Amino acid sequence: MIDDLVVRQADVFRNKMGIEVLTDHRAEGIDRVGRVVTGKGPQGVFAIPYDHLLVATGATPIMPRQPGWDRPGVMVLKSLDDGRRIKAFLASRPVRSVVIVGMGYIGMEMAEALRAQDIAVAMVKPRPALLPWLASELVETVSATLEKAGVAIHTGFDVAQIVDDGDRLQVMAAAGASLTADMVLVAVGVRPNSDLAAAAGLALGPDRSIAIDAQTRTSDPAIRAAGDCADAFHAVTGQRTWIPLALRANRTGWAAADDVCGKPVTLPAVVGSAVFKVFELGVARTGLTAKEAADAGFEPATVTIHTASRAHAHPGASRIQVHLVGDKGSGRLLGAQMVGREGVAHRINTAAAALHAQMTVEQFSQMDMAYAPPYGPAWDPLLVAANQLIKTL
Amino acid sequence: MIDDLVVRQADVFRNKMGIEVLTDHRAEGIDRVGRVVTGKGPQGVFAIPYDHLLVATGATPIMPRQPGWDRPGVMVLKSLDDGRRIKAFLASRPVRSVVIVGMGYIGMEMAEALRAQDIAVAMVKPRPALLPWLASELVETVSATLEKAGVAIHTGFDVAQIVDDGDRLQVMAAAGASLTADMVLVAVGVRPNSDLAAAAGLALGPDRSIAIDAQTRTSDPAIRAAGDCADAFHAVTGQRTWIPLALRANRTGWAAADDVCGKPVTLPAVVGSAVFKVFELGVARTGLTAKEAADAGFEPATVTIHTASRAHAHPGASRIQVHLVGDKGSGRLLGAQMVGREGVAHRINTAAAALHAQMTVEQFSQMDMAYAPPYGPAWDPLLVAANQLIKTL
Repeated sequence: MIDDLVVRQADVFRNKMGIEVLTDHRAEGIDRVGRVVTGKGPQGVFAIPYDHLLVATGATPIMPRQPGWDRPGVMVLKSLDDGRRIKAFLASRPVRSVVIVGMGYIGMEMAEALRAQDIAVAMVKPRPALLPWLASELVETVSATLEKAGVAIHTGFDVAQIVDDGDRLQVMAAAGASLTADMVLVAVGVRPNSDLAAAAGLALGPDRSIAIDAQTRTSDPAIRAAGDCADAFHAVTGQRTWIPLALRANRTGWAAADDVCGKPVTLPAVVGSAVFKVFELGVARTGLTAKEAADAGFEPATVTIHTASRAHAHPGASRIQVHLVGDKGSGRLLGAQMVGREGVAHRINTAAAALHAQMTVEQFSQMDMAYAPPYGPAWDPLLVAANQLIKTL
Repeated sequence: MIDDLVVRQADVFRNKMGIEVLTDHRAEGIDRVGRVVTGKGPQGVFAIPYDHLLVATGATPIMPRQPGWDRPGVMVLKSLDDGRRIKAFLASRPVRSVVIVGMGYIGMEMAEALRAQDIAVAMVKPRPALLPWLASELVETVSATLEKAGVAIHTGFDVAQIVDDGDRLQVMAAAGASLTADMVLVAVGVRPNSDLAAAAGLALGPDRSIAIDAQTRTSDPAIRAAGDCADAFHAVTGQRTWIPLALRANRTGWAAADDVCGKPVTLPAVVGSAVFKVFELGVARTGLTAKEAADAGFEPATVTIHTASRAHAHPGASRIQVHLVGDKGSGRLLGAQMVGREGVAHRINTAAAALHAQMTVEQFSQMDMAYAPPYGPAWDPLLVAANQLIKTL
């Protein structure tokens, strides 16, 4: 079942594609002058010369360093092995309750999976906002959905340590509160695996990602970086950013290969489009939040609206919320967020296209969008929001 | 139930908005020199002077003129009254089978509604293609869905006459075939109600729609036109077009009011975005077909792909088909079509945004789109299609 998630096994590369794949080999150093990668493998140290080098080291879940994070039953979820470990732990004993540390999309997806097995779930994080990048009215919908599904939300809960409590674990907050659980899942985000690149003196980007250009080249043109470890340019700000997501990671891999082979490549800028599902809700964003817009030098105006997800009088409609961010100076659309039970995941990409095209809110509001009663109102929620936002620009 | 579909009753305009609404008054002439509209009402003839005149006469279902189309049991579906007549007819006698003349989205939506009541449905049309504007592989999916739902498809069936057959109706084709049914629904399209405007000497647009400019003004600047009777400019071709759909109709009404009130207005061009639902399928389009592209002077290249509607190994996935049209000369994206059980209706608007922004297929292929396994593959079907289409440009 878990193996179904593997798109290509290592042996396919080895046997069908003629690519030498050295698993269990850890690269530990890059000699940029001699163009050699050194490291350790099952047969001891290795040194592999290169003409071109690709650093595709990915990202690693952030693991806090406070006491107790190394206890059995405290787990992260990133790799397939992490998934196997979690499944094995759940199978090995009765797990009635889980504390999830972190409230990002990995934590929420895990909360849904655990609730589906009727396991009690509490989510904790030190900061006050459930999803700090999401507009507050949209956060309320996510929060209400989690609570209705039986997930306890503890914001302002800064884990100080995790201690054994018989067969169970006690998660203790700095402020004195504590929660007891059979398992603790840590999902507080990821960091780029850039130590190797940094040690080799390659330039770093935001959040210590590896800085690359539009040909995936690092500050050493013989070394490329691709995947979750590499940074990107943001189409809205023009600045470097680090948003490790699947499509971009995949795209940089293609681009690196094309560039090595001499095919003209210009990696596009990103707009940070993302979506996740939490219980029946879709939660999506693209572009900048109001805060990110202000930080980037824009003068943000925002609007939050909600409309029915289907046409007037159409049965089965639910509520869809849209939050848009525009720039008072230029009138440009800067970002969009949506929450709803239907029609969120793909609608967000209409806003993403508008961001790539640097449309103004006015231009966006005048788009000709497809309409049919089962799928939305005649005025799409995005258009309703844009019409409102124009008035404040 | 049917009354729920009325967004605003006439009395709301009369009593709450202070607007004089003369129902049962037929406008029959426009005296453009004297600025007077003349016609007939319950109290006889009327003559109403105007400073500004808005022609919002809408569109009417096309009714063939061959013998028998005036028989009871032969009906069209456009207005609420048409809906009431159809419901009354179905309630008045046992209706076991219906012939639908025409295979557009109204006909297909009616087929679905009738099949839900277990009424046998046959659809007929003279031309050979079920949906001539849809790429053939996508048509096959629609056709298979209709047939699986028990709808008989008779293309090449040119109705010559409809005759009584006891209590039933016999629909006879020119070529000799005939079908017997309890009711005949005519859904062969609509035409703009432009006779009044034409008689007043106003310039007409495509398909005898009323030609308007970006301020909704007709060739007489004191007369505006809005709604399904008015034409539009197409953002891809730059040419006039007539695509009577709800959003555009609504938008022209707003624009006409703004323009009369002296508010600056520039009506946007359309891209012809449309979607309909037929049984479990969504069918959507935006922009040009290959034929329309060639007719407009482009050199079209096309691609048709299908992918899973969800990520690799995600349960519940179905098939989604994408057809893209690009221009070999400029590399521009010219049109998109999609058919699938999920994720079609809102995805099409991503392509619509790209058309408004006059993106190339290459630019479109490089969009940063939101991804999560329940909603699609990491490479969205639109991107997969764009990546293929680039190779042929």
